[in-house]
Amino acid sequence: MSGSPIDGADMREVDGTNFLALQEYLYGQLDRAAKEPLNRQLYRALRGAILAGRLAADAVLPASRELAGALGLARNTVLHAYEQLCAEGYCSSRVGAGTYVARVLPDPAPKQARRAVGGQQRVCLSQRAEALLVQFRRSEENSGPAFAPGLPDLASFPWATWQKLLQARQRSMRPVEYDYRTEGGHAELKAALADYLRLSRGVNCSAEQILVTGGMQQSLDLLARALADHGDAAWIEEPGYAGARVALLAAGLAVHGVPLDAEGLDWRGQALPRPRLIYVTPSHQYPLGSVLSLARRQALLQEAGRHDAWVLEDDYDSEFRHRGRPLAAMQGLDRAGRVIYLGTFSKVMFPALRLGYLVAPAGLVEPLRRLQARLYRESDYLTQATLADFISEGHFGSHLRRMRGIYAARQDKLRDTLAEQLDDALPLYGGEAGMHVTARLPEGSDDVAISRLLAQEGILAPPLSGYCLGAPPFPGLVLGYAGVDDAGLRLAAVRLARTLKTAGVFATL
Amino acid sequence: MSGSPIDGADMREVDGTNFLALQEYLYGQLDRAAKEPLNRQLYRALRGAILAGRLAADAVLPASRELAGALGLARNTVLHAYEQLCAEGYCSSRVGAGTYVARVLPDPAPKQARRAVGGQQRVCLSQRAEALLVQFRRSEENSGPAFAPGLPDLASFPWATWQKLLQARQRSMRPVEYDYRTEGGHAELKAALADYLRLSRGVNCSAEQILVTGGMQQSLDLLARALADHGDAAWIEEPGYAGARVALLAAGLAVHGVPLDAEGLDWRGQALPRPRLIYVTPSHQYPLGSVLSLARRQALLQEAGRHDAWVLEDDYDSEFRHRGRPLAAMQGLDRAGRVIYLGTFSKVMFPALRLGYLVAPAGLVEPLRRLQARLYRESDYLTQATLADFISEGHFGSHLRRMRGIYAARQDKLRDTLAEQLDDALPLYGGEAGMHVTARLPEGSDDVAISRLLAQEGILAPPLSGYCLGAPPFPGLVLGYAGVDDAGLRLAAVRLARTLKTAGVFATL
Repeated sequence: MSGSPIDGADMREVDGTNFLALQEYLYGQLDRAAKEPLNRQLYRALRGAILAGRLAADAVLPASRELAGALGLARNTVLHAYEQLCAEGYCSSRVGAGTYVARVLPDPAPKQARRAVGGQQRVCLSQRAEALLVQFRRSEENSGPAFAPGLPDLASFPWATWQKLLQARQRSMRPVEYDYRTEGGHAELKAALADYLRLSRGVNCSAEQILVTGGMQQSLDLLARALADHGDAAWIEEPGYAGARVALLAAGLAVHGVPLDAEGLDWRGQALPRPRLIYVTPSHQYPLGSVLSLARRQALLQEAGRHDAWVLEDDYDSEFRHRGRPLAAMQGLDRAGRVIYLGTFSKVMFPALRLGYLVAPAGLVEPLRRLQARLYRESDYLTQATLADFISEGHFGSHLRRMRGIYAARQDKLRDTLAEQLDDALPLYGGEAGMHVTARLPEGSDDVAISRLLAQEGILAPPLSGYCLGAPPFPGLVLGYAGVDDAGLRLAAVRLARTLKTAGVFATL
Repeated sequence: MSGSPIDGADMREVDGTNFLALQEYLYGQLDRAAKEPLNRQLYRALRGAILAGRLAADAVLPASRELAGALGLARNTVLHAYEQLCAEGYCSSRVGAGTYVARVLPDPAPKQARRAVGGQQRVCLSQRAEALLVQFRRSEENSGPAFAPGLPDLASFPWATWQKLLQARQRSMRPVEYDYRTEGGHAELKAALADYLRLSRGVNCSAEQILVTGGMQQSLDLLARALADHGDAAWIEEPGYAGARVALLAAGLAVHGVPLDAEGLDWRGQALPRPRLIYVTPSHQYPLGSVLSLARRQALLQEAGRHDAWVLEDDYDSEFRHRGRPLAAMQGLDRAGRVIYLGTFSKVMFPALRLGYLVAPAGLVEPLRRLQARLYRESDYLTQATLADFISEGHFGSHLRRMRGIYAARQDKLRDTLAEQLDDALPLYGGEAGMHVTARLPEGSDDVAISRLLAQEGILAPPLSGYCLGAPPFPGLVLGYAGVDDAGLRLAAVRLARTLKTAGVFATL
């Protein structure tokens, strides 16, 4: 082929399916927050596609107007990129034939030297490590962004404000504050959090009841080890949050899944051992989205009392309620001091912050603080102080309000696109709050196989089975919609729908 | 007394013992790195002492020249502070009588309103938590700075350089880099570390063998759970690092102390169960300071092979070798892939950095990375990237060289002061490297009681017993000398010596 003359008849237009793939690829390469101009980014992405063979010799690039529309760019941006590619010899253009990939490229594709790694060693892990690795083999790696559950919209975070506050704190930090600390968190952050939780979540607490942690996983690990011994039983929701299941298993607990009904956790009539810990997500069940009813909350507190068990209330994303009235935290109903309220900043701020918190009954805070200081050390106070400023100066509240609007609109976009593509054949659950919905697949579908198929197409859609210890209540896919912008969300939803249809998931479509 | 007239005869001079106490108090209140002028800080500290009753009415303040000398301040600084106190009515001065505390103070001492905390709750911890809390009841809280072991000199850290690098990285970070990451650490940091460890410590590694962790405790917890099951045996040094003991106990391991001889860990002739993990500090045994001999290293690797055990080599402070030739890391001798090398930045940089690392045999890195991502999440990449720059631009090397000189001089200061005060009655061990020495108390002393007595005097000197599962090899005190400057170190050493003498620890003094 490399020797044949260029002519119009040889050229292969990027067809519908390939156009979608190209759009997705290009979309993934563009970073609107970067300083590099978008036309330059697009040029690099296209050049990369050409050098990697993704766009073959003679392939005709999409019309500039069409590509601009699909990627949400100005047409001039696309034209600039095309012109640059032509100027450098990667492409040519001819009236009537559009822009197409050159046969003889100006640079050979660079070969990456691969560093040799030392020979494979005998590796013998502990049984518990093997058991843990199996727990998240199915949905561990976040290959998203669409549809990574729990991933917030990082591009919409007010980075300039955050950096201004951070630099102000950097200037005023005293060296001694960079030492090990053992106060269970920065006092100003605890005070700001207590105010926020009382007002916004109905949590009954003072700053002294708050322990700042290195995130939800640290909170769960600390509580599992501080409150339960190896072999003790824990109840979790089925389906439920895999991170909690892993933390409890890693702490040596016997973890039992409790099924859900319309009102939430339903332990009645189940053969369950007496629990030491009960882990629940009452505001917005993860991942199905139901709200634990008031009656069921009271019954659960009674049940916990009967067993002398602790209730871990994970309120991971209730800041984003889109429909219906929010219920206050269950902790506010607790008169016996059995509920420990858990929150994280990974979803409402950003994951790299690595900060979470728990609210514990007064007498429990001190031993937890001492265990935390020794088992993990405390998180750095510079970040905590900056976060305290971010909350007390009102930026936290504004950010939450703004993101609530953005996420609600994104969920609508996902719903609309799937409805348009699939005629409502894919019901979505749990959209009243949060950053994800669960799509119910037709009865008899294999959600693990479908998720794997989607992963091959670059779509991250964890199977509902991955959230269960046993069989899932129905086959499903968990779809996070928060971390992808509108254009990317639409592209991913179209690709999802097409893949499901092509795979014959819907008998009727 | 409050009604009697002021006259010279009524005045009580601050005597020798009280003068030392006052100096220590004032010294602890001064922060040379703060922006507030030192005369203002001294004024506030003295006013605080007066308001709190530490300096009573009519007490005569030390002569300005004497106080300036003891605190390492200019005499004018002290004079300014005294003048301010007199101007505001806290003190008066009279020719021949010096400066003395006024009887009627201008402000009443403010009463701090104490926030009521909810009623004490029933708290029932797990047995393992109770067991862990007992482990560090004796030396948990860092009430230092003198003589907190492991506390680096934070005032000498090049903060301006660090902040410049941090801000440069902040400006260039893309939002997506604030997401959850699952690469086992920032690639540039791993590369910089691999270079450093190969060159400086003789560690045989590539960047792919490095896992960046949230500090030494996270490394130990991860390895204990990944490599050993509940009830498996671990060997640790006796005496040894309490942080390792706690991490292994918290992971459910049966921890066995192995005694030391002049060459280091000596398991021969001991009734020990077959270990799954062996934890050692070969470069500078913690806390006694011996170096594991080459012959013993080879024997230990053989012994580990016989049991099919992993060796955890904690190289926590070998960057600071003051005397003798440094031995390369034991990991470099390992041909069987049994040694996991552990390091931390808490001591060579600052504790709030919350970064450590491990170097594992190639096949082990991948499962460790996956477990880490799920059990703890990875540490933020902004800090890691900044640290990579700090290392690769040469600041890390310069900082180490500079601190090595400072710490060596400080150890000399501690030795000299104790020798001067105690006529060499308190032998010091383990000063060849690092940031602490261990003082050997006379046979029959109760180091726990002595440490408690010192704590009452504001001196943190953990008893050697606290580093042991059983009885210590001798009664001793572990004295960190790195985190206090020369003047503070001398004051603390004088106070330590006087307290030991007063308590009758030395029959002959």
